[in-house]
Amino acid sequence: MVEYKPMSILAIGSIALDTIKTPFGKVKNILGGSAVYFSVSASHFTSVKLVAVVGEDFPEKHILFLKNKNIDLNGLSIKKGKTFHWEGEYSWNFSNPKTITTDLNVFADFNPELSGDYRKSKYIFLANIDPEIQVKVLNQIKNPKLVACDTMNYWIENKRKKLINLLKRVDIFIINESESKELTYEANLIKAGKKILRFGPKIIVIKKGEHGVLLFTKDHMFTTPAYLLESVFDPTGAGDTFAGGFMGYLAKHKKIGQGTLRKAVIYGSIMATFAVEDFSLGKLGSISKSDIEKRIKTFKKITSFEIKP
Amino acid sequence: MVEYKPMSILAIGSIALDTIKTPFGKVKNILGGSAVYFSVSASHFTSVKLVAVVGEDFPEKHILFLKNKNIDLNGLSIKKGKTFHWEGEYSWNFSNPKTITTDLNVFADFNPELSGDYRKSKYIFLANIDPEIQVKVLNQIKNPKLVACDTMNYWIENKRKKLINLLKRVDIFIINESESKELTYEANLIKAGKKILRFGPKIIVIKKGEHGVLLFTKDHMFTTPAYLLESVFDPTGAGDTFAGGFMGYLAKHKKIGQGTLRKAVIYGSIMATFAVEDFSLGKLGSISKSDIEKRIKTFKKITSFEIKP
Repeated sequence: MVEYKPMSILAIGSIALDTIKTPFGKVKNILGGSAVYFSVSASHFTSVKLVAVVGEDFPEKHILFLKNKNIDLNGLSIKKGKTFHWEGEYSWNFSNPKTITTDLNVFADFNPELSGDYRKSKYIFLANIDPEIQVKVLNQIKNPKLVACDTMNYWIENKRKKLINLLKRVDIFIINESESKELTYEANLIKAGKKILRFGPKIIVIKKGEHGVLLFTKDHMFTTPAYLLESVFDPTGAGDTFAGGFMGYLAKHKKIGQGTLRKAVIYGSIMATFAVEDFSLGKLGSISKSDIEKRIKTFKKITSFEIKP
Repeated sequence: MVEYKPMSILAIGSIALDTIKTPFGKVKNILGGSAVYFSVSASHFTSVKLVAVVGEDFPEKHILFLKNKNIDLNGLSIKKGKTFHWEGEYSWNFSNPKTITTDLNVFADFNPELSGDYRKSKYIFLANIDPEIQVKVLNQIKNPKLVACDTMNYWIENKRKKLINLLKRVDIFIINESESKELTYEANLIKAGKKILRFGPKIIVIKKGEHGVLLFTKDHMFTTPAYLLESVFDPTGAGDTFAGGFMGYLAKHKKIGQGTLRKAVIYGSIMATFAVEDFSLGKLGSISKSDIEKRIKTFKKITSFEIKP
């Protein structure tokens, strides 16, 4: 059997220096951002080309860390000014964080021009940024094979039309529960999922955080609980980490059928559990393949039941 | 193979006439109450002995309906006065209903004296009532084999000690997510589940509504999503219906191991989906065995994934 060569993933998104307070402590200017969590997560499965922008203040050690993770940084611009900075605070229940400050800095003018090489990419992940920028990036790709994107409530509220136009050209749409409801004006998630399928994407992934994930395609629906953690430390980046595991798993497998998609959801969920067990990439950046497989096996064990078909 | 004769279940709880408003309509004085939802649900699996009280206003048609469901009503007292009446209202998201009025009426003095026959019952379900009454009932049972109970926030807040004393004598504790957190002062459900195990019950079931169910035993944990419904009509009674399916399934199977418990959780969850698709027992009271099995199969289909062990 000839082994399938994993597809490389082109990831476009933010790199941030985050200041985060949780009930367990406070950290300043730690490595974060959607593209970072996505890339480090996906790098456990395949190679990643990262397209993002940082300021001159971005520490060299972070660049080295990402390079060591099989992440191609040729698409990383270092611009005059400061790196995107987000400050947020979580309370005990770890639901939506309170944003203290958002300093876009060099990220305010993010409008990437891809190199000729990058334009030939087949697997694309458009992390949560302005849908107009997502479209501009997508326009540069010659012949994409699988395009996934994320978004956030802000764009649903302020650039709804642009977002819906983008969705016509996207294969996989990965969003969270509240976003899916806001986008479709539906309180019921099955109705929301079906409605989004009509917007264009063939695959819809609705993330429900600690309550698991829903997957919708034209002919199938899949629902899975989350892997339960006894201690959540910092949920920042969990969604992008999920997307990285999900896309990484798909990039590693030739056929994208229902079985592969479901397994990709499970792998994405498991990757997210590592993200939330430490600040920044503390845990996610240091785990091995066997750590992942061990948790996958535990998940299978705690979710399986026998009903004769 | 000799077929196992299902154990009969003794169920103690409330019978109510409910007035319910949902975004889909309003109904007055419909059949409800924890013991009713539990019994009708369990009756799809085994025979049930119902211990409860109603007033003289309780319609004869409800008595006939319950009798037709293989439910033994020898333990039903008809007292002078009016039947317990609850009035509640649900908003679009169907989370906790707003209670408009609670008229305990004859239920205020509920303190059942079991007949000699009933005292020999082996499978007992103590629905959500005052833990002091739950203990009094349990004291009358000669040699129970499997005791399950439910409770609510009100008793956790007002009769915490009595409740914890009761738990020492209970095998299965079925509660919802917020109750488990309130009882244990733990925000994390794994920590909550483990702590409740130390209170005494060998089996803890934490219901998370539309987000599924968690099952804890000393050596195992099980997590499952809910069966997704496109339309929820009225969630009243879903928790008791779950308990009825769960206990009913157990009563039908001789061995109560991890496999049986997990299947009981799935059957309980599926029974609850029928309860919420209509007001009162509209749907739950009219389904057949094949309706249940069909939904069980669909659930298996929408939750299964293959990870080699």
